[in-house]
Amino acid sequence: MQRGEQSAGIGTLVKDHPPTAVGRALTDGRLHSLGEIGLQQFAPYLMNRIIGRYNATIRDDLKARNLTTPQMRALAVLAVADGLTINELAVYTVTEQSTMSRTLDAMEAQGLVRRESHQTDNRVRQIYLTEAGRAQFDEMWPTIWNAFSTMFRGVSDAEYETFLSVLHKMLRNVRQHEI
Amino acid sequence: MQRGEQSAGIGTLVKDHPPTAVGRALTDGRLHSLGEIGLQQFAPYLMNRIIGRYNATIRDDLKARNLTTPQMRALAVLAVADGLTINELAVYTVTEQSTMSRTLDAMEAQGLVRRESHQTDNRVRQIYLTEAGRAQFDEMWPTIWNAFSTMFRGVSDAEYETFLSVLHKMLRNVRQHEI
Repeated sequence: MQRGEQSAGIGTLVKDHPPTAVGRALTDGRLHSLGEIGLQQFAPYLMNRIIGRYNATIRDDLKARNLTTPQMRALAVLAVADGLTINELAVYTVTEQSTMSRTLDAMEAQGLVRRESHQTDNRVRQIYLTEAGRAQFDEMWPTIWNAFSTMFRGVSDAEYETFLSVLHKMLRNVRQHEI
Repeated sequence: MQRGEQSAGIGTLVKDHPPTAVGRALTDGRLHSLGEIGLQQFAPYLMNRIIGRYNATIRDDLKARNLTTPQMRALAVLAVADGLTINELAVYTVTEQSTMSRTLDAMEAQGLVRRESHQTDNRVRQIYLTEAGRAQFDEMWPTIWNAFSTMFRGVSDAEYETFLSVLHKMLRNVRQHEI
């Protein structure tokens, strides 16, 4: 066996547990072991591996543009929902509020976003993309689109629909914010 | 409007794009805008939000046990696939190899894992859980199980099965390792 090759232990990871058994395990109210489920049927493991790779791919591509992940996410969210508060942006971009606050300071200095007081409550500040910010997003979007469409290659419309509806249920189950 | 409440801009985020249209967008070979897709139908956004919350919940619960996320993941993977190499553990736990190497040093010092040379190639070192390591995993597993079953509340067997099969396709599309 060469360094980096698979060891003998790996066989147990790909054991083909029937997925429906895991579905039942989830609904029978008992605690099941990870061995019973099998790592390949344990969705959080798969999700961490997939989304870790997806994020890394985009991060590498954006390094050339000197954009951080929170900046990229802020641009993307504002591109479809201008006028959010810092709180909302922090939730949507899955970023600590203090990090998002620093991120927006930097983006404002770069001329990518501007902040305006809310029309009827000037304690609330809303964040908007500038033209330069929108141009920056338009430039990086093909990179994100490419990672997204590569990731879902071979997935049918119907499968994507079910996949999304499960994600929506999951988000309702875990989120701490009503947004 | 109070601080932290939703701003007017949020409406555009929850616009109900039909998911099948996104499925078609993925397969028609053209580049579509994020506005066309809608953030709520853009799976990577949902996956980042969900898995970020799931990981944070478990991390918070494990702080009391003085376990880091890489340690927790190494325990979980070894609990179902003993005898892996560092390379393999780094891939399965979605951890940089240098971080996994330091993590294993600490876990060895704590008596949670032991390393053994491979039977036929003593350049390869395999990692095994000790009894104390397995006991540590058994203690923390209910926390993980709880986060897992909460996240999938209300998801049927059939939905979980489709969800898993899409995740398996996605992993094949994005992974850089044949494991």
